[in-house]
Amino acid sequence: MKIDILTLFPDMVRPFFEHSILGRAKRDNHITVGIHDFREYSVDKHQSVDDTPYGGGAGMVLRVEPVVNALRAVDEEHTALRILMTPQGLPYNQERAATLAKNKHIIILCGHYEGYDERIRDYFDVEISIGDYVLTGGEAPALVVCDSIVRLLPGVLNEASPEEDSFSRGLLEYPHYTRPRVFEGRAVPEILLSGDHAKIEAWRREESLKRTKKRRPDLYRKYLEKRKNR
Amino acid sequence: MKIDILTLFPDMVRPFFEHSILGRAKRDNHITVGIHDFREYSVDKHQSVDDTPYGGGAGMVLRVEPVVNALRAVDEEHTALRILMTPQGLPYNQERAATLAKNKHIIILCGHYEGYDERIRDYFDVEISIGDYVLTGGEAPALVVCDSIVRLLPGVLNEASPEEDSFSRGLLEYPHYTRPRVFEGRAVPEILLSGDHAKIEAWRREESLKRTKKRRPDLYRKYLEKRKNR
Repeated sequence: MKIDILTLFPDMVRPFFEHSILGRAKRDNHITVGIHDFREYSVDKHQSVDDTPYGGGAGMVLRVEPVVNALRAVDEEHTALRILMTPQGLPYNQERAATLAKNKHIIILCGHYEGYDERIRDYFDVEISIGDYVLTGGEAPALVVCDSIVRLLPGVLNEASPEEDSFSRGLLEYPHYTRPRVFEGRAVPEILLSGDHAKIEAWRREESLKRTKKRRPDLYRKYLEKRKNR
Repeated sequence: MKIDILTLFPDMVRPFFEHSILGRAKRDNHITVGIHDFREYSVDKHQSVDDTPYGGGAGMVLRVEPVVNALRAVDEEHTALRILMTPQGLPYNQERAATLAKNKHIIILCGHYEGYDERIRDYFDVEISIGDYVLTGGEAPALVVCDSIVRLLPGVLNEASPEEDSFSRGLLEYPHYTRPRVFEGRAVPEILLSGDHAKIEAWRREESLKRTKKRRPDLYRKYLEKRKNR
């Protein structure tokens, strides 16, 4: 997969693709990553990318020209899936991550300042919001999206099956334990030491259901409905 | 506000506090930031922080000792609010951001690998999930939380009022426009050029409602209910 990120702060974004699983995915050529400072595509001599809003109001608005110029430099024929990170976008979830992971080339625009010039939207294919909170920029959200997608690409996570994680079955995960057996009086549940794999499987399934019901009744309801409709 | 982040990848996190609004907040002493590699608190000579799960299964589990040792080094008396980033946590939103922003000292643990040893939870005050998707680590979520909190601290955003943003009133934002007046045939709405501030205000309010109703019927319903109950 080819990933291009348009940002005003390349140095905030770059290190994420140098470490851990994303770093390895890049080194192993599962992904190629381009990080582009769209300030370089501004149209005036001051390299301005924002301006005051028509109609007045607080904050600065991101101008359309630098964004569109950067898009055309990176994706001349518009063959990539162009993603706009915005709190007004489609709520992001695991299902959407799986859909995005099927693309060969994605471009993500990280906004900044008060907002985007509305006309920028016309040049994008999908708008995504990672949650109902306000941020100073789209950089962290873009990294969230990249992280969630890249781990789903074939070959990237060889040790674990992505299907076992939270949300993939619509439930929260069961509790995990590792050494030591006892820590400050807190012991690992006996069943996990029993070696009885069928019982362990059943316990984990039960814990996963209990936890989802208690912590996320909304997800639990959805899960029950899905099962009923099968 | 004092912010301590416990992570295995300090270099992924650090640059976020060097740029843009978070960088300025740090330079202006609105925040002090400590980024701690909790691998340094591991208890064996191999500096291991993870191990295989009791009961079997894919992936590695984060061990309890390095995390608890790091917590005690940073927050000996447990006076800070300790936040665990996990997909099983409370769903994060703007209201929760405002609550967290009232703390003098927060500590955020970024997980990694398949999951946490369950006993780690006992040492934290709150568990937060930024959304229903799976990531390879808690670094991007921790940055999301920091970004959303820091911009709410008094004095950090002097030019704009945080109350005007998406979600603060429970609605999505109205469309923004800046120069040029026409771009590739797309014109700024006439009303924004009219200079009639009352009309512009009314238009923006209407657009904000329309957009929320269309894009996020869930938020729109909540907004109507809240108004009814006033």
